[in-house]
Amino acid sequence: MDPITVIAAKRDGGELSTEQIREVIAGYTSGGVAPEQMSSLLMAIVLNGMGRREIADWTAAMIDSGVRLDLTGLRTVDKHSTGGVGDKITLPLTPLVASYGLAVPQLSGRGLGHTGGTLDKLESIPGWRADLTVDEMRAQLREVGAVVCAATADLAPADRKLYALRDVTGTVASIPLIASSIMSKKIAEGTGALVLDVKVGSGAFMKTYADAAELAEAMVELGADAGVDTRALLTDMSSPLGRTAGNAVEVAESLEVLAGGGPSDVVELTVALAREMLDAGGLGEVDVAENLRNGRAMDTWRSMIIAQGGDPDAPLPAPRHTHVVTATGDGHLGALDALAVGEAAWLLGAGRSRPGDAVSYAAGVTWHAGVGDPVRAGEPLFTLACDDESRLERAVERLDDAVQIVAPAARPGPRVLGRVGDRAQPRR
Amino acid sequence: MDPITVIAAKRDGGELSTEQIREVIAGYTSGGVAPEQMSSLLMAIVLNGMGRREIADWTAAMIDSGVRLDLTGLRTVDKHSTGGVGDKITLPLTPLVASYGLAVPQLSGRGLGHTGGTLDKLESIPGWRADLTVDEMRAQLREVGAVVCAATADLAPADRKLYALRDVTGTVASIPLIASSIMSKKIAEGTGALVLDVKVGSGAFMKTYADAAELAEAMVELGADAGVDTRALLTDMSSPLGRTAGNAVEVAESLEVLAGGGPSDVVELTVALAREMLDAGGLGEVDVAENLRNGRAMDTWRSMIIAQGGDPDAPLPAPRHTHVVTATGDGHLGALDALAVGEAAWLLGAGRSRPGDAVSYAAGVTWHAGVGDPVRAGEPLFTLACDDESRLERAVERLDDAVQIVAPAARPGPRVLGRVGDRAQPRR
Repeated sequence: MDPITVIAAKRDGGELSTEQIREVIAGYTSGGVAPEQMSSLLMAIVLNGMGRREIADWTAAMIDSGVRLDLTGLRTVDKHSTGGVGDKITLPLTPLVASYGLAVPQLSGRGLGHTGGTLDKLESIPGWRADLTVDEMRAQLREVGAVVCAATADLAPADRKLYALRDVTGTVASIPLIASSIMSKKIAEGTGALVLDVKVGSGAFMKTYADAAELAEAMVELGADAGVDTRALLTDMSSPLGRTAGNAVEVAESLEVLAGGGPSDVVELTVALAREMLDAGGLGEVDVAENLRNGRAMDTWRSMIIAQGGDPDAPLPAPRHTHVVTATGDGHLGALDALAVGEAAWLLGAGRSRPGDAVSYAAGVTWHAGVGDPVRAGEPLFTLACDDESRLERAVERLDDAVQIVAPAARPGPRVLGRVGDRAQPRR
Repeated sequence: MDPITVIAAKRDGGELSTEQIREVIAGYTSGGVAPEQMSSLLMAIVLNGMGRREIADWTAAMIDSGVRLDLTGLRTVDKHSTGGVGDKITLPLTPLVASYGLAVPQLSGRGLGHTGGTLDKLESIPGWRADLTVDEMRAQLREVGAVVCAATADLAPADRKLYALRDVTGTVASIPLIASSIMSKKIAEGTGALVLDVKVGSGAFMKTYADAAELAEAMVELGADAGVDTRALLTDMSSPLGRTAGNAVEVAESLEVLAGGGPSDVVELTVALAREMLDAGGLGEVDVAENLRNGRAMDTWRSMIIAQGGDPDAPLPAPRHTHVVTATGDGHLGALDALAVGEAAWLLGAGRSRPGDAVSYAAGVTWHAGVGDPVRAGEPLFTLACDDESRLERAVERLDDAVQIVAPAARPGPRVLGRVGDRAQPRR
């Protein structure tokens, strides 16, 4: 295989063969295809696209670059979110679903830029560790049902290498590349079923419903082709989820949900995703919210945290500095810009600029009103928390235009906007 | 400047600012912009194009990456060909134009793949050297008028680095990138006027007249913007030029033209380009072919070769092996595939696969009939020459389908197909 021929074929709008895709991915992983060759191919894919067969081949080639976990014998169902601001849903959702007897192998990542990372949030719990061996993960799935841990380096290593390249070459924005990146990891992880939370709106990667639906359909098709029962919910990310964005603040908010309370949108989305996961796992008839009310989801949470070395009763890290931003007028909150809130949390130290940077667990943003809520001049709108006071000024500035206060009350819309994929057939 | 922002702007179909172009080219030259970033930007340019102002900025940035020669005090006019098979025109043209009193600073390159390199051809002359210092070149321009030599490394180094990257990343095929690459070198070289020979057809980079015209117009505009009087001829490269492709064989054919003979298409194109160059140099009224007939062009050739250490009377290298391919039927030559002939010469050893490879000076292909000529079964069609006999088989195979023998005589068309750029105003 000559990489230039493959690049030229995609540049000229052609279709790549199964063989070409297999060889170019294997060559990039082994070093025979140079980064500058892969990046020009990636840009040609961004601009000229890939068809369904090509996307499936691309995904298969990335899976074949590493190992595939064997989770047979467990009734597994996983969830993946395309990333949003304040998206702590994995934290209450994983133990909730596991509390009904399913195994949830939630391999997660760390944050980069304005979207937070699930592992960063959980690491704010004293003692908790993200790195498990495959055997530890399998044992915990059997005993607790719920695991949130870091993906091992041997799962789809081609995707890891490609993602790092896409990140610096302006080639992230491609539905075929995003779909194959997500699905290669999830298929390699060995889950039996998968529910996707595809975010739409200003704080999400996909700004329009049409783009998000295209991405959701591509991923549901890839899952089906690989024998993984896959569905997707399209959910609103024009405003951030819940009332917090950061690390420890999001853990605290998740604990409220597990205790039967919490912000209504976080509860709505947790329950909607749990319903899909339980349906995919063959438990379509249960009352999904019951284990939030009766404490069983909280029990599973505690077991999960303890199994990974964490102390569920230890106090969460408190910030050295806080700053309150107050409302400048009376009215109702008409809009709250998810991107601005996410970037403010990042500027406060909750996120990182480069892979490997340390994060501040106590840093984050809390907003005291959601879309549609009344606000009064002089009352708190945001509380900003950080360990390094010099970070405050830019974060406050970033929030300057994040809110609109309007005269008539805006009604917040539902979080779930749409759905892709088959439901389980009623069992006889 | 963040390179990812620049890449994303072009990926999304935007226009790059003067500042962005300047910084990205300077960054790539110095190493601050990584090759994988530049190659994804190049692919975005291949697919989304650049406007006139962007192309001019891109060209200026490449010129600014190095030095600009100062040839003031000389009436300079240069020629550049986009490359074809059997294109030895520089060899008779440079001394012909210089013989009328103009200075022709012909900075040339070496061959890669199926198109030969002017320097490789001249190096088949014993003693001749391509590498001159700028002072040597200036002195020779003053004394002889004609110079063909290698471009120094400090002329548009960004173009050199970019071209090597484009070559391996499938990003050669772009009119804005081709135009700026050629014109940055020619403008940096300091010529006062420039005539472009833009090839069209199967043996050329531009397969259609429309593409070639677009390239010609882009280059003429760039020249005008930089104060270089620039014109272009669009010329036919569906069949190879003259009767030879290789190194020493092309020198021998050029000597026939300088002696007042030679194949009619080589003479036609030499005279047409000389007419444009003399017109651009202010000598629009002379009889362009006169100095071919009266020996003055040959005298300048000899002076030029001697000035660069060559012996114009030494025998040219003879091949160790030759092989004759005969015609299989009677009729007329309906077509002769330029690409096949060029690749056969390359397979025989006349060209190189990688920069830096050695070439065989004696290797090449001679065809005994041109388009429209009668051929008879059993008579010689091609003579293949090489030093390494093992190269013969593949070269003969490559020529298998290179000719069409047809019943009615095909009339060869003119070599000059069109023209772009203003003519000099008649002087009063």
